Amino acid sequence: MATAYKTIGQRTRRLDSPPKLTGTEKFTADMSLPGMLHARIVGSDLAHGRILSIDKSAALDMSGVVAVLTNADLPIHRDENDIPAAELLAAEEALHVGHPIALVLAETEAAAQDAAELVVVDMEPMPVVSDLHEAIREDAPRVSADKAGAFEDEAAMHNADAAGSAEKQEDLPPNVSNSANFERGDIDAGFAEADEIVELSLTSAAIHQGYIEPQVALAAPDAFDKLTIYTSTQGAFHGRQKVSDTLGMPLDSVNIVPMPVGGGFGGKFVLIEPLVAAAAKAVNRPVLLQYTRSDDFLAGNPAPECAIKIKLGAKRDGTLTALDVDLLFDAGAASGSPLGIAAILVGGYYRFPNLRIKGYETKTHRPSSGSYRAPGAQQATFAIESAMSELCDRLGMDQIEIRLLNCAEEGDLRPNGGEWPRIGLRQTLEALRDHPAWQQRDAAKAQGRGIGVAVGGWPGGIEPASAACRLDGDGKLTVMLGSVDLNGTNTAFAQIAAEGLGTGVEDVRVQTVDTAGAPFAGGTGGSKITYTVGPAVQKAVEDAVEQIKQIAADHLEASPEDLELVDGGVRVKGVPGSSVTLKEIARMSMSTGKGHMPVQGRGGSGIATQAPGFAAHLAEVSVDDLTGVVTIHRYVAAQDVGFAINPATVEGQIEGGVLQGIGWALYEGMPYDEDGQPGASTLMEYTLPRARMAPPIETVLVEVASEAGPYGAKGVGEPPAIPGAAAIANGIKDATGVRMTALPIQPAAVLEQLG
Amino acid sequence: MATAYKTIGQRTRRLDSPPKLTGTEKFTADMSLPGMLHARIVGSDLAHGRILSIDKSAALDMSGVVAVLTNADLPIHRDENDIPAAELLAAEEALHVGHPIALVLAETEAAAQDAAELVVVDMEPMPVVSDLHEAIREDAPRVSADKAGAFEDEAAMHNADAAGSAEKQEDLPPNVSNSANFERGDIDAGFAEADEIVELSLTSAAIHQGYIEPQVALAAPDAFDKLTIYTSTQGAFHGRQKVSDTLGMPLDSVNIVPMPVGGGFGGKFVLIEPLVAAAAKAVNRPVLLQYTRSDDFLAGNPAPECAIKIKLGAKRDGTLTALDVDLLFDAGAASGSPLGIAAILVGGYYRFPNLRIKGYETKTHRPSSGSYRAPGAQQATFAIESAMSELCDRLGMDQIEIRLLNCAEEGDLRPNGGEWPRIGLRQTLEALRDHPAWQQRDAAKAQGRGIGVAVGGWPGGIEPASAACRLDGDGKLTVMLGSVDLNGTNTAFAQIAAEGLGTGVEDVRVQTVDTAGAPFAGGTGGSKITYTVGPAVQKAVEDAVEQIKQIAADHLEASPEDLELVDGGVRVKGVPGSSVTLKEIARMSMSTGKGHMPVQGRGGSGIATQAPGFAAHLAEVSVDDLTGVVTIHRYVAAQDVGFAINPATVEGQIEGGVLQGIGWALYEGMPYDEDGQPGASTLMEYTLPRARMAPPIETVLVEVASEAGPYGAKGVGEPPAIPGAAAIANGIKDATGVRMTALPIQPAAVLEQLG
Repeated sequence: MATAYKTIGQRTRRLDSPPKLTGTEKFTADMSLPGMLHARIVGSDLAHGRILSIDKSAALDMSGVVAVLTNADLPIHRDENDIPAAELLAAEEALHVGHPIALVLAETEAAAQDAAELVVVDMEPMPVVSDLHEAIREDAPRVSADKAGAFEDEAAMHNADAAGSAEKQEDLPPNVSNSANFERGDIDAGFAEADEIVELSLTSAAIHQGYIEPQVALAAPDAFDKLTIYTSTQGAFHGRQKVSDTLGMPLDSVNIVPMPVGGGFGGKFVLIEPLVAAAAKAVNRPVLLQYTRSDDFLAGNPAPECAIKIKLGAKRDGTLTALDVDLLFDAGAASGSPLGIAAILVGGYYRFPNLRIKGYETKTHRPSSGSYRAPGAQQATFAIESAMSELCDRLGMDQIEIRLLNCAEEGDLRPNGGEWPRIGLRQTLEALRDHPAWQQRDAAKAQGRGIGVAVGGWPGGIEPASAACRLDGDGKLTVMLGSVDLNGTNTAFAQIAAEGLGTGVEDVRVQTVDTAGAPFAGGTGGSKITYTVGPAVQKAVEDAVEQIKQIAADHLEASPEDLELVDGGVRVKGVPGSSVTLKEIARMSMSTGKGHMPVQGRGGSGIATQAPGFAAHLAEVSVDDLTGVVTIHRYVAAQDVGFAINPATVEGQIEGGVLQGIGWALYEGMPYDEDGQPGASTLMEYTLPRARMAPPIETVLVEVASEAGPYGAKGVGEPPAIPGAAAIANGIKDATGVRMTALPIQPAAVLEQLG
Repeated sequence: MATAYKTIGQRTRRLDSPPKLTGTEKFTADMSLPGMLHARIVGSDLAHGRILSIDKSAALDMSGVVAVLTNADLPIHRDENDIPAAELLAAEEALHVGHPIALVLAETEAAAQDAAELVVVDMEPMPVVSDLHEAIREDAPRVSADKAGAFEDEAAMHNADAAGSAEKQEDLPPNVSNSANFERGDIDAGFAEADEIVELSLTSAAIHQGYIEPQVALAAPDAFDKLTIYTSTQGAFHGRQKVSDTLGMPLDSVNIVPMPVGGGFGGKFVLIEPLVAAAAKAVNRPVLLQYTRSDDFLAGNPAPECAIKIKLGAKRDGTLTALDVDLLFDAGAASGSPLGIAAILVGGYYRFPNLRIKGYETKTHRPSSGSYRAPGAQQATFAIESAMSELCDRLGMDQIEIRLLNCAEEGDLRPNGGEWPRIGLRQTLEALRDHPAWQQRDAAKAQGRGIGVAVGGWPGGIEPASAACRLDGDGKLTVMLGSVDLNGTNTAFAQIAAEGLGTGVEDVRVQTVDTAGAPFAGGTGGSKITYTVGPAVQKAVEDAVEQIKQIAADHLEASPEDLELVDGGVRVKGVPGSSVTLKEIARMSMSTGKGHMPVQGRGGSGIATQAPGFAAHLAEVSVDDLTGVVTIHRYVAAQDVGFAINPATVEGQIEGGVLQGIGWALYEGMPYDEDGQPGASTLMEYTLPRARMAPPIETVLVEVASEAGPYGAKGVGEPPAIPGAAAIANGIKDATGVRMTALPIQPAAVLEQLG
């Protein structure tokens, strides 16, 4: 861009760095309120069992224990037909190991913990459905009575594309809670004209979001049945609605105070708030529930396991002719999975004249699945990008050229029939092609390394948003937001505001306000906050600037059109001497008798156009043929970010996403045995990538401006977490000739494949 | 008015009634934070003394005592010349009895109280200036070194008219900190043409605001030098500025959370917040300071004592010819008094062709004076309205007719040369004249009762204000405000918002937001909140309604101009079937992909025109000639309120004001002896009117619409507290022939006068 910006586009220190870097940030669990009780959940030992009785007596006898609550003790709203709005604790049946059955409330955390172990739950074992393929059989035992899909809402928050995309079918097997079905062209004819066909069967394990700060919320009731809930959440307004619906409280009786988030990654879109709120109401005291790490594994909302069969056909020149995919997603104990998104993306990156995509989501006796940074995209991408590389190898083509040949561009259709808007998939591939790591691939290969390439894309979330701002008495602008600050979003908004105001970032403040007083904004997730809240901030600041100019015009006896904002003040264009500072204007705006009004801006955004973000990754890997251990030596991530408002945080986002992709590819996984018993419930059993597992990561920012985003910016959160598994698997194939199809790719499996 | 309003103008239950009526409201002192310390002040025993030493040791030895802070211990900001921004505790000299010298911080209130008594302050007595007339002598001992006036700011907040009105003079006696000087016409010629001249010398005691909840604030520091201050305040943003200035903190490092106010009446415009904030910063722990009742008497900010000499001349027909007034106001230990307002009002109610008004404000060794509901107006009105009645008696005229003959109207000049805008003084007098209590005065007199009449007016405060609103997911509108809710202001705003929205009050919420996120608004005082914030609310709602109509228009496929808001929805005019509810619109506005934006309104007001409010009161009294006890049998208050948005709360305001006027007239007073020792430091020694002292009060609402107020409304807070003392004194004169000139009018004095 030719325009010279002053603050946007500049590497800017994150506003939230000081407290986070110095360890002095106050998180929810650091809070304490007078009379506050600590809560601990009592979870099910069985993956499926009928609750016969709950003996609270030993727990209640413990000193410091105030209550042991079961579902019946909670003030859950019931509708006119006496149907409860939710089951916050397992009432009759526990549906997975760790399913919360009771909540112990005590004066101290230690007492709550000790007492939780004394609660005796007598259960009758019931048939367990643990395996996905078993689960979808017509004759499978039913996981639970409930069948309705509940994920739609949340999927829409992440990705508008998914809303309503998964078609409902009548004759689904009993545990199947959702299905997807897309067809285009003639699939048989497509394969018939193919010169080469690849078929792969892939799996991806359940993955935990891996945030450092576990789920935590503190609910404090007041004397008027109002609740203030301090919570580590990605979606304050969403949480308000959920608590309000669940407890049957008026919206304004619930105030969500969004606290600093110690990692969310999609896993903090309201999980425990209704339970904590209900508990606080039940005992009329503040209640703090912080999950233990085990709670978070057993009763969190991880990314689901899935199995994908993919069949790909192409002509000799690399032109794709047909795609046939079968998706099977776990939903866990309650319905809901990112099946719809996966179904669209698996067939969306490339032009397929003929395709058939069919998917099932099934319930199992596992924790209900949730969102994890690019839900559905990682699994779908692992499938399509493994298959593409496999096909490429068989055709003897160049990995990047075959992708450039087929890649979707503006106007191409997604499997659901929707047209792609302007996207930067081609440009990221070109950036990767031009990168030294690709150019020098022969040198790497000569060292026995493999080069894996994969692309990934995210349709991009949209949700209406609003912002407000106010010129304070000291001449600084305060931006008030209802969106939660994650990964530097507030810093980007400060830059946007400062740019509009003609000042530096230090003259702008960004204030996350609780739901009682905040402008509405959607959840922070789905790569949409900068994209949707950013324009609202821009407009709010423009609104304020107009008012600032009007006051300045009165003061300087000039016309507002002749004024410009520079260096923290307003001046008559071309007359440097004729100026007034923002502080003077602020004072005038709040001074009695001058006829001015306080400067107060508001802006909204109702973007209906998605701005999909694409990334092309390259992993340079080697495999130790004695141990099977995979080492990543170099990693390149090219990403179309539209416009990098703060390149430093955008790069940070990309690096973090890459590392999560590496975790997904090589280390992470939550296995379940046939009894539904989890194989990972601590960080000893669940391997998050450590610093030594992080390769040097090179980022390349590609800027294909979006239409609606602020200064062309697009969401950058999801895309970097998508292509990792495929890129690494493709690198392993390139290095060893072995195609790994099950995530995580563990050394033992590699060794076995290597023979 | 012919327009049919739906919610405004209706008697509406106050939104804050339930918690206040049930005693469950949570006030500042009900709060407790982890680690919170309780503070207690150590006040001076002497009215003037040099602090030689402060021995903290015994106090610090007490269990639970954490600190004993003196002024030197407080982190008060110093400017580049090392001049401190304030002296929060007496540093070298104590200037009045109760002047805070040290602050004890302890784990419990009891420990703080006990320890405060163990702090030994060694002081050297210094000359005490207690009497006002002594204080203004050229050779009087200096009260303190400081001379600059500090009241201007606050006076302007109450009453724009006062700002800058008091002229500065060069050769003032040493303790005189301000003066007023107004002249018009030829005063000598004026008295020369008078047929009757009245001269009175009147005094009014210092009066405490008498709020039930003492001064209280809780300051909580965080790890980043930010302070959250929960406080019973009338002015949140004003408090933020004061704390910021005093401690040298950036504005956004101070967040004022306005708590429910248990009575303010002008006395809670930031008194203890800077001290509590400084203490909290000094020890880096939350600090709660709640004044004891004694603290509040000794270290509060009461209405000042004053002495007024007034001379009034008139022709036989009642036409006024001249006014000569000398005002003497106490400022207490620091400069600042409502002298300027009093000087304007004493000569402002009537047309005086010739006048001379001269006033002094003097410092004394008493607590610094503050604002009390209509500061300066009560004293000035007691003088002018006593003199008017006296004159009327001598002329043998009708008390109301003489006032109607001379009363100021739109365009008449105030002593400071400013023109009165449209006022309702005449109309309130006419309303009183037509009232049965006046019409049947002969019957009352036949029972030995006296009928006293007096008028009073308040110029009306103005200050820029802003408001925001938001349509919530349940279709209800939340109005967000930075103004503090007092006496039903938020209820009036709910009515204004509901009227604009075409709904009932139950579909509107009003949220007082802390200074971190609130739209700017001035202090709640000076009879200006409904007048100035009201239009901001109106505009914010109009802004929202425009957006609502736009969404409805899209949905109904109609033009926004063809739509109307009725019954919680929007419909096409004349097409009842074609409608959409606010809830549906709210949902659409926040739904993804529809292209709508969240509905969010903002509005500001920068009113430059005052809307003075006038009241005419009638007191029917009798005097027991054995005891001197005055009984009020009937009380009528006619008041021009412009437009009564909520008649119920307006009447409540009037009744409360009348009762405060009665307290001022007959019961309340804070005397000081020559050593500056107070005669009242508890509610045993200071008589607030009790229920049995409250006569039946009849209110008459007169509605002379203001130009700028919402629906013509004017401020209603101050006027009802103004004419009381004069009306009652005039009633006593009417009943007994005795003119009482010293407030409070106590039985002994009445007996003495009766002989």
